[in-house]
Amino acid sequence: MKAEIIAVGNEIVTGNTVNSNASYIARQIQMLGIMPKYHTATCDTMQDIQEVLCKSLARADVVFVTGGLGPTADDLTKEAICDYLGLELVINEEISQNIQAYFKKIGRYMPESNKKQAAFPLGCYILKNENGTAPGCILTKQNQYIVLLPGPPKEMKPMLDHYALPYFKQKLNCCYHTIDIKLFGIGESEMAEKIAHLLGDFEYASVAPYIGDYEVIVRITAFGDNEKKAVEVAQKIKNSVCGCLGEYVIGYNQDTLENVVLELMKKHDYTIATAESCTGGMIASTLVNCSGISTYFKEGFITYSNEAKIKYVGVSEETLSAYGAVSKQTAREMAEGVRQRTQADIGLSATGIAGPSGAAQEKPVGLVYIGLATPDKTYVYELNLKGTRQQIRERTVKNVLFQLYRNLK
Amino acid sequence: MKAEIIAVGNEIVTGNTVNSNASYIARQIQMLGIMPKYHTATCDTMQDIQEVLCKSLARADVVFVTGGLGPTADDLTKEAICDYLGLELVINEEISQNIQAYFKKIGRYMPESNKKQAAFPLGCYILKNENGTAPGCILTKQNQYIVLLPGPPKEMKPMLDHYALPYFKQKLNCCYHTIDIKLFGIGESEMAEKIAHLLGDFEYASVAPYIGDYEVIVRITAFGDNEKKAVEVAQKIKNSVCGCLGEYVIGYNQDTLENVVLELMKKHDYTIATAESCTGGMIASTLVNCSGISTYFKEGFITYSNEAKIKYVGVSEETLSAYGAVSKQTAREMAEGVRQRTQADIGLSATGIAGPSGAAQEKPVGLVYIGLATPDKTYVYELNLKGTRQQIRERTVKNVLFQLYRNLK
Repeated sequence: MKAEIIAVGNEIVTGNTVNSNASYIARQIQMLGIMPKYHTATCDTMQDIQEVLCKSLARADVVFVTGGLGPTADDLTKEAICDYLGLELVINEEISQNIQAYFKKIGRYMPESNKKQAAFPLGCYILKNENGTAPGCILTKQNQYIVLLPGPPKEMKPMLDHYALPYFKQKLNCCYHTIDIKLFGIGESEMAEKIAHLLGDFEYASVAPYIGDYEVIVRITAFGDNEKKAVEVAQKIKNSVCGCLGEYVIGYNQDTLENVVLELMKKHDYTIATAESCTGGMIASTLVNCSGISTYFKEGFITYSNEAKIKYVGVSEETLSAYGAVSKQTAREMAEGVRQRTQADIGLSATGIAGPSGAAQEKPVGLVYIGLATPDKTYVYELNLKGTRQQIRERTVKNVLFQLYRNLK
Repeated sequence: MKAEIIAVGNEIVTGNTVNSNASYIARQIQMLGIMPKYHTATCDTMQDIQEVLCKSLARADVVFVTGGLGPTADDLTKEAICDYLGLELVINEEISQNIQAYFKKIGRYMPESNKKQAAFPLGCYILKNENGTAPGCILTKQNQYIVLLPGPPKEMKPMLDHYALPYFKQKLNCCYHTIDIKLFGIGESEMAEKIAHLLGDFEYASVAPYIGDYEVIVRITAFGDNEKKAVEVAQKIKNSVCGCLGEYVIGYNQDTLENVVLELMKKHDYTIATAESCTGGMIASTLVNCSGISTYFKEGFITYSNEAKIKYVGVSEETLSAYGAVSKQTAREMAEGVRQRTQADIGLSATGIAGPSGAAQEKPVGLVYIGLATPDKTYVYELNLKGTRQQIRERTVKNVLFQLYRNLK
């Protein structure tokens, strides 16, 4: 089955928004054996949408369309496509009530224009939107499918995963099993060299690498006549990959560095506290992404100034004047100090130069020291990171969590 | 002049690589008055490339093609396009020597396969590659242009900016000016109702809304015979939009909530401190996104537990037991307490239920109180937010910064 992925919206075409939806959809549908063949982006006029749809229906079995389901006059995807297919839009009472309830809940008046988001052709398969007011739908035209999804990725992704993919899974009667192996601390090319013999498209499975920010993912998709067979094949390949790359594996599927760390803290019954300079609260905030963290993380300090480093986590003035705020000595004292003052089992710290200003001859932008004080020992790591201010800070957080993960493990 | 942007490569189509080239090219060419109308991505076979090119030449004046200029057997863009146009590829001696020199410089022997990168049709305009071995080129077909660029962004972007854009700048003579107006605290549909008379495509300008997360943007693109005229038209429309939506406008173009807040803090010479519960450091971390914040933000507390709220920012035990941690009273005491203890001018706080667990009958997921203690008065706001744990936390941060912005203004 061949697919085309269409993005509708001036914001995509003019380059204001990067079309990340297309790559997400492309990756997800391959798990069902649906092969993406084309991506297209077009402006949000009736004519443009219809012309692009016409071309897609001539070359694809399934057409995914993102964007243009909003309430404004330039949200025309549903109107253009139904007009093209000769389908009438009718208000769906249940959806209409859902949208009204959504506005009531957020305490806002529902504008007249939102009414049209409840209009769908009779008999289409409606896709629920758990994160906004625009539901999607699947239209069928003989043996072809047209899937309408909202543009914002936070609405589109859950709708695709929770409603559209299961629809096709049932229709296609396909059995597959996917495992994402998440790696940290290894580059794509080094990874590809180590598992070159495992990567590729095989009769019963495909194994392909994907790159996240500072993270490499190996995705295994195994096919089978039945679910059990597919799971077995995927597990077998997973074991081979982990055999080659074990030390870099931080988790699987939905795992993130922060939740694998939380699981290990639970296991050890360890509490944790943070003292952050350049990350400015981002280590703590990342830990707090995990629901259930409150038993293990109770407090943290953002010690951005030298005074705060002295006052709240007991860094010595001598250390600061002898070595500076960005030094392994300061990182060590921050981690040990916060651990001691809060009586946590683990103290974490980060101090560095995130840029773009603040660099000195011996301390360039991207130089960061991270500290990890444990009951047994304190570890300090020097990082030399590249990227924007935001990227350097994010990468610092990932490195802190990765070292914590390794240590707890 | 209309443009289509084509990406050639299986890595794009299968979703392994996000097509960030398309949005970059789209943004850059608009400055020259070339309007992007379509983006397409296709696989790297002769047939696919030729079919896509054929469609593009039927609807665009300029076609930008990225990818497929490498040395390997599946790099076929130049071959496919020249074959389609009936142009013969001839080795260009100067380019051939450049490629050999490149390999010599990096100390490697030049593989035979790289030879084909020096082949171009006679009379085309060659685009130099400063960061790799694949030069690009511009082909003309009557009044149409086909621009071939390499796929890797670090090669493509400088080639576009330094060689392709100057080529078109000389050929063309049109001027553009773009202003993004950033709004907060208003939904897309309410905004569209208020400025319905201003939205749309007009002779001298286009005005269109875009949606970020919890943020609405109005983009004005004005055209003119000269730069001054375009700027004037854009400014005039901007004034009209701001006249209707003034209270929601938080900034323009690259402005973010955090940097407009920083500018106002500078103006008032105010310092700030934070006490965060559900946001877990995200308010501080967002402020620290701004380079130059260190004069105004020195310290913050993550008071996730009740004990930490009492110990570090002086929330009273009575308040916590009478009203609970998620209450307007606690938010008030956190903001006032952190302001007092740190001697900052402004104290910010957030306490709420980010979910998915932790809700009670009277305190549902999404209920958040934010506090803003100023030299004159303390403000507390109740928010009822929707979304995932992460979204509720992000939206809390945006609301805190928005209230701070309004207050400072």
